[in-house]
Amino acid sequence: MAEKVGFIGLGIMGKPMARNLMQIGHELVVYNRSREKADELAEEGAVVAGSPREVAEQSDVVVTMLPDSPEVREVVAGEDGVFEGIGEGSLLVDMSTISPVVTKELAAEAGKKGVGILDAPVSGGEPGAVEGTLSIMVGGGEEDFERAKPIFDVLGETVVHVGEAGAGQVAKACNQIVVALVIEAVSEALVLGSKAGVNPAKIIDVLSGGLAGNKVMEAKRDFFLEHDFDPGFRVELHHKDLGIALAASREYGVALPITAIVSQMLEALKAKGSGDRDHSAILTLIEDLAQHRIGEGASY
Amino acid sequence: MAEKVGFIGLGIMGKPMARNLMQIGHELVVYNRSREKADELAEEGAVVAGSPREVAEQSDVVVTMLPDSPEVREVVAGEDGVFEGIGEGSLLVDMSTISPVVTKELAAEAGKKGVGILDAPVSGGEPGAVEGTLSIMVGGGEEDFERAKPIFDVLGETVVHVGEAGAGQVAKACNQIVVALVIEAVSEALVLGSKAGVNPAKIIDVLSGGLAGNKVMEAKRDFFLEHDFDPGFRVELHHKDLGIALAASREYGVALPITAIVSQMLEALKAKGSGDRDHSAILTLIEDLAQHRIGEGASY
Repeated sequence: MAEKVGFIGLGIMGKPMARNLMQIGHELVVYNRSREKADELAEEGAVVAGSPREVAEQSDVVVTMLPDSPEVREVVAGEDGVFEGIGEGSLLVDMSTISPVVTKELAAEAGKKGVGILDAPVSGGEPGAVEGTLSIMVGGGEEDFERAKPIFDVLGETVVHVGEAGAGQVAKACNQIVVALVIEAVSEALVLGSKAGVNPAKIIDVLSGGLAGNKVMEAKRDFFLEHDFDPGFRVELHHKDLGIALAASREYGVALPITAIVSQMLEALKAKGSGDRDHSAILTLIEDLAQHRIGEGASY
Repeated sequence: MAEKVGFIGLGIMGKPMARNLMQIGHELVVYNRSREKADELAEEGAVVAGSPREVAEQSDVVVTMLPDSPEVREVVAGEDGVFEGIGEGSLLVDMSTISPVVTKELAAEAGKKGVGILDAPVSGGEPGAVEGTLSIMVGGGEEDFERAKPIFDVLGETVVHVGEAGAGQVAKACNQIVVALVIEAVSEALVLGSKAGVNPAKIIDVLSGGLAGNKVMEAKRDFFLEHDFDPGFRVELHHKDLGIALAASREYGVALPITAIVSQMLEALKAKGSGDRDHSAILTLIEDLAQHRIGEGASY
């Protein structure tokens, strides 16, 4: 691809993603708020810009990977932001997980400037970012999607164009709802089963074979059984994501009774100082309620 | 196997299970409260007994497959029940889904009589019963498990000895917790996503590839997308099963906040006359709350 790519936001996810784009030969212009991370990539051949505006001035396609809606608004539409430097006919690909409402606002502004825009949040965490095996949920126009496809193919394994602007963020919100509720489900099941005397590993084994089977139980098996809650995916990020889902539910008039409660579970985990642990630590809340640590005292 | 097998309870699950046992050459003594179902199997070669006691008198291994705890108590420990006819050294295999507390009571009584007992509830529904592909979660002693294994191997595909008496019921309760909560999770996600304008089929597609992936979304895909709620597994049975889980949670001192609420969802479905629909009809409750039927008005 001859297009020049800019990349803004070199955090845990963004840096390996940018690196993957460089390794297949993209000449990359990068920007990060704290300069050291950009300098690291400069040593590997990236051009470091002084602001999001400068990135946009030097790129055909600008990718952003930022923590939350306020950061995306600031970087894209703020002072010295992408919109100040981006040329007509360019494309902005926001891969952050943010509010679909904010995404639609930015899409409207981009439209006025003749700039294409895609929302393309990912799932798969740091390992997926490093290995280029992310799931990417893309919202936006078909032509823009086709234009960004070579980039997505470098970064991800499952790339689905789910709908118009904002649809990618909506799909990501749905994804985070299901993951959080499944963690809660497995936690309640394991604590009941274990306190009733059954070995939690056997519960996971037998449940995996049937309708109760799920990826959380597979991927987080050792997190649950060993109480090893090194992230993984941090509680505080999942809490942020359910905040997005619940804000969207207010926007669209959808009641999400269980999502609302599980969001409170994540709030409680943050309150007890577990915000930086893996989201499977929801288990510890259910354990606390039962005064029982799974696997202890199992009779079998 | 030379052992003579008795089978009590020829309902939707029991009849095909009994038939599978006959087809591999077991000489079967059967009993059912309403006689017609027993007569059907008599035409295929089964011996019809006049009471659970008579079944036990003529069998080395007695299998029961009944709706709920009271029926199992009555058939096993009641007048003309199994315990009145069963000989020392015989084995009782209860494959019903009942309270683990009741299971342990019966196990204690069986022990006094020198009778082996296993709790072996199943998952997999009518298709699993017909095809002999059930998942069987077995609680009880190792020797008894080995003795019943040839029977389990005819009836099921995944057979796991999860622990001592009652452990099978505990595992089944865990299974039903996870299944119910995953249905709730998928329902909330689909209603939010669809009302926000995203095609629910695409949501299932993209979620299936990642950590949100689960068997419910796979097996119930058409139930959700087509609003086809022919069971499947009936709401009223799942409601009964969560009642068992919640009773066990009181017994063992485990708080199950989300299980409790989803059990109320099933209660609400029964109240609105959907007790005989498939449990995936939880979707319709979330749709009602949002005044939105998924798939309608999706912009993409």
